[in-house]
Amino acid sequence: MTASGVREVAERARSAANTLRGVTRQRKDLALRGMADALVEHTASILEANRADVSAAEDNGTSPALIDRLTLTPERIADIASALRELADLPDPVGEVVRGSTLPNGLQLRQVRVPFGVVAMIYEARPNVTVDAAGLSLKSGNAALLRGSSSAAQTNAVLISVMRGVLEQQGLPVDAIQGVPGSSHDSVTELLTARGLIDVVIPRGGAALIENVVTNATVPVIETGVGNCHVYVDADADVDKAVTIALNSKAQRVSVCNAAETLLVHRDIAPTFMPKMVEAFRDAKVRIHGDERIREYVDQSMFAPVNDEDWAAEYYSLDIAAGVVDSIDDAIAHIRRWSSGHTEAIVSDSQTAIDTFITGIDSAAIMVNASTRFTDGGQFGFGAEIGISTQKMHARGPMGLTELTTTTFIVTGDGHIRE
Amino acid sequence: MTASGVREVAERARSAANTLRGVTRQRKDLALRGMADALVEHTASILEANRADVSAAEDNGTSPALIDRLTLTPERIADIASALRELADLPDPVGEVVRGSTLPNGLQLRQVRVPFGVVAMIYEARPNVTVDAAGLSLKSGNAALLRGSSSAAQTNAVLISVMRGVLEQQGLPVDAIQGVPGSSHDSVTELLTARGLIDVVIPRGGAALIENVVTNATVPVIETGVGNCHVYVDADADVDKAVTIALNSKAQRVSVCNAAETLLVHRDIAPTFMPKMVEAFRDAKVRIHGDERIREYVDQSMFAPVNDEDWAAEYYSLDIAAGVVDSIDDAIAHIRRWSSGHTEAIVSDSQTAIDTFITGIDSAAIMVNASTRFTDGGQFGFGAEIGISTQKMHARGPMGLTELTTTTFIVTGDGHIRE
Repeated sequence: MTASGVREVAERARSAANTLRGVTRQRKDLALRGMADALVEHTASILEANRADVSAAEDNGTSPALIDRLTLTPERIADIASALRELADLPDPVGEVVRGSTLPNGLQLRQVRVPFGVVAMIYEARPNVTVDAAGLSLKSGNAALLRGSSSAAQTNAVLISVMRGVLEQQGLPVDAIQGVPGSSHDSVTELLTARGLIDVVIPRGGAALIENVVTNATVPVIETGVGNCHVYVDADADVDKAVTIALNSKAQRVSVCNAAETLLVHRDIAPTFMPKMVEAFRDAKVRIHGDERIREYVDQSMFAPVNDEDWAAEYYSLDIAAGVVDSIDDAIAHIRRWSSGHTEAIVSDSQTAIDTFITGIDSAAIMVNASTRFTDGGQFGFGAEIGISTQKMHARGPMGLTELTTTTFIVTGDGHIRE
Repeated sequence: MTASGVREVAERARSAANTLRGVTRQRKDLALRGMADALVEHTASILEANRADVSAAEDNGTSPALIDRLTLTPERIADIASALRELADLPDPVGEVVRGSTLPNGLQLRQVRVPFGVVAMIYEARPNVTVDAAGLSLKSGNAALLRGSSSAAQTNAVLISVMRGVLEQQGLPVDAIQGVPGSSHDSVTELLTARGLIDVVIPRGGAALIENVVTNATVPVIETGVGNCHVYVDADADVDKAVTIALNSKAQRVSVCNAAETLLVHRDIAPTFMPKMVEAFRDAKVRIHGDERIREYVDQSMFAPVNDEDWAAEYYSLDIAAGVVDSIDDAIAHIRRWSSGHTEAIVSDSQTAIDTFITGIDSAAIMVNASTRFTDGGQFGFGAEIGISTQKMHARGPMGLTELTTTTFIVTGDGHIRE
């Protein structure tokens, strides 16, 4: 039943979390800065482990893009360390009084932020997530259970060991940061069903990973980062702004969840908008998967007919699905049908159209005359981010420290009873 | 696959929810008041259906307590209608700006409350939950899928039909309020796995119901109402206050989730506290399931030896588990082991003890020198309540209208792109 050792690890995390609840911000920040220094000091051993992971990945024929995500350099390690120092500068959400009042009977009511307890992350190749997630969890008073990709196993082991060394040195519970043992599906299943030991599981990765977690988890889950984002160009759009926004949304960086994957164009603006859009996409080497009404504007060399798989796709590449719609309502219906609920943009100068879009769209973020690429904790000014929630419960959109906490009502009386 | 018709019902609810998102507070309040009037007008037909449910339950040998919960009277119907009118008087959470700012680049950021969409309730005998849940959902802009107990099926059918009649009359989508067809487990399973159609499932009932929902759901769940609440009497407690608070917590109303089920007494105060407590419990006919150190204070007529089932029990009756602890840390460890995370009380005049308790306890509410019975949306001044969440995600403690919403980030620019 616990052959993989997941339960034992989770129990140690719970015990560490019980201690961490009462640790002051000062001590947590000291640990974060200590971890930043230690990671830089251990650059050589981190790089050595990373080279082993990378060469194994190369032997397995891993794609260059994935190899790039996996690879660390001294600069990247320095960046990871800087992120921990920035985290230390952010306010501590724990202890914040969310609301408070004195009730008519004199009871004093306070709703106060407290840590979740044990946060488990399940994620893919990038080793920086190991440090980011550990740091965000520590700062918010949570113990972190880190389940990274097996392709980064050696790198992650060294990163975790360095961070645990600092916890030990500073007299904090070392089991506040743990890797999850085992690489089997069984160990993931144990993680996902450790009710009472794990307070929340945050999957961070592709749609398949998230679907697996959601389907099998009995512990609470926060879904993150699946982004099938849309740009809708309204009949009343400024054509130049629309071209710029659609291009930026698609092509500024393609491998991220807030990149656009579908362009919807109102039929009335298509004749003026599409020629300029196609030109911009051609320059940026974007390939259009379009419907019949899009086809007439596009060179066949950069065109493919669109199908349902395209409408559902997160390309993470220089591809975009595109269609002409007869009305804003049709655009909204299309988005409702296919969106992953991450970010949708409207380009329009019509306040009526904007209001219709905002009321009709049910996603984490709506961009009005702005690129989808802005949905990001850093861009929003929230500081570090553990992911972008695409679910409606608890957190929606960029998730920072606050979203790693829950609350407790503390009610203080003087012998108060109910009559 | 959809033999029970649950999927079709959920699709109609989704469609109704899409309309409801844009309905003004004024129209929602008008509908709530209309529903209140209509329920009173239809008192005769509601009572007729209720009599049929009650007599079937009596034929099945249902307990008098459950029969009482199931039974409606003209007064109870009037109370249910009043609750709808009070709901109409509460502010609408939809549209509330949770935070907003202008970013350095001029983008205008607003985080705005929006309805969840489709809320499913799974609940037990009380027919008033049917109306409460429908009303809270409507006010917060959500479509409600109501899955009540089969023992209340005829009553619920009439209540739902009356409310739908008002929606139709007022031009609102009738499918904003629907009963869930079928009484089989299959139909519950379909409800729990209707991802994309149902935004949240709220089970309201006993531990077995909630466990079933949590284990089988792939849609998000908010757990409510399992209350194994503790009262800890510290070494430094005022004895009279402690007796009053423990008695009130246990016996003021036994069939509710915020009633206390366990009493923990510090060994230093047991000799002065226990004799008075036993006297009070004897007068209130409370039976004590105690450990060996409790036994010496209690007449054998009101005593039973405590076991693990008692520590875990929600008696919902005039029974209480009781033990003597050697320290506040032992009390905290006991509560962590057995609590359902609802409400725990400490009675103490020591600020150090109170702080230790608050830091150590991880429950939705902590009462300091006050009865556990205060954990309640009405008592907290939040207005109507759909349940008391005992989970950490999204909502914790009494859940009102706000907790039936999520948020959307609306970001307004003027052609903004990321560099």
